[in-house]
Amino acid sequence: MRDLPLSKVYQLLEPGPVVLLTTAQKGRTNVMTMSWHMMVEFEPPLVACIVSEANYSHAALRATKECVIAIPARKLATKVVGIGNCSGRDTDKFKKFGLTPRPAVLVAPPLVEECFANLECKLVDTRLANKFNLFILEVVKAWSDPAQKNPKTIHHHGFGSFIVDGEQIKLKSEKP
Amino acid sequence: MRDLPLSKVYQLLEPGPVVLLTTAQKGRTNVMTMSWHMMVEFEPPLVACIVSEANYSHAALRATKECVIAIPARKLATKVVGIGNCSGRDTDKFKKFGLTPRPAVLVAPPLVEECFANLECKLVDTRLANKFNLFILEVVKAWSDPAQKNPKTIHHHGFGSFIVDGEQIKLKSEKP
Repeated sequence: MRDLPLSKVYQLLEPGPVVLLTTAQKGRTNVMTMSWHMMVEFEPPLVACIVSEANYSHAALRATKECVIAIPARKLATKVVGIGNCSGRDTDKFKKFGLTPRPAVLVAPPLVEECFANLECKLVDTRLANKFNLFILEVVKAWSDPAQKNPKTIHHHGFGSFIVDGEQIKLKSEKP
Repeated sequence: MRDLPLSKVYQLLEPGPVVLLTTAQKGRTNVMTMSWHMMVEFEPPLVACIVSEANYSHAALRATKECVIAIPARKLATKVVGIGNCSGRDTDKFKKFGLTPRPAVLVAPPLVEECFANLECKLVDTRLANKFNLFILEVVKAWSDPAQKNPKTIHHHGFGSFIVDGEQIKLKSEKP
């Protein structure tokens, strides 16, 4: 894993990929699948996300105020769906899906080695957590895997239907 | 334009497409390009978005508490970038980019006829507006254009670089 400048984090999340979110509480790690997230600020990178109270990760995120957002490429799609269809309440999902937890540097939840990018996050605002399950995270450290070149991400359209990244187009723009 | 059930709105926004946002204030309409948005709730559909104070649309959205989210397909990519690189302060963007405003039913801002889906929205929460420019919208009416079959959306990676929707994959999942 290679250091990724925080100024480039928005380029990973802005296009709307399905991601994984890891938490750790009382020595127990967990991972969930998440599609409801967005950038809030470029740098330091702020990210908003919805983690439903129905998700086992909700309590861990609120209590520990830390998580990792890991971004999977297409080859992990089947595991990503499997992770989204079971719960950490009764399943060690890292074990079940053969994912490798790796220590993060600034937070307790693990990175996911198989993902092409990992973002260590601290919870910075919970004012909308009760009403909307909405959390504001600050990305404090980011990693990318140089071995995964031009990874294609997946975008959820409901009930296991995904669109995979297609061709890239470049248009003249001054906007980041 | 055909009625779209509100229960299907999340399938349009969850995958992270670049969208347009229209506003209307004192008889003047405007349209901006937006990539920072996410679903918050399935039904009634709630959407969070970031509309920077630097955007001319910010004041109109706050004052009128209404907007339309219009979703463009790939063929509009050049216009979408152009719209993002100028301001409603000094430009009639509907005119400049040859877009057709159409009356909405429940809000004052116009639909964009060329877009394959249009979502009429009311502003329902501004608690994070001052600190993060974050707005919570409720989609009160949704439209789709039956003439645009399987539209490919575009996903921004910064500075005019976009990934176009590629192939669709279907995996077994019980989750919406």
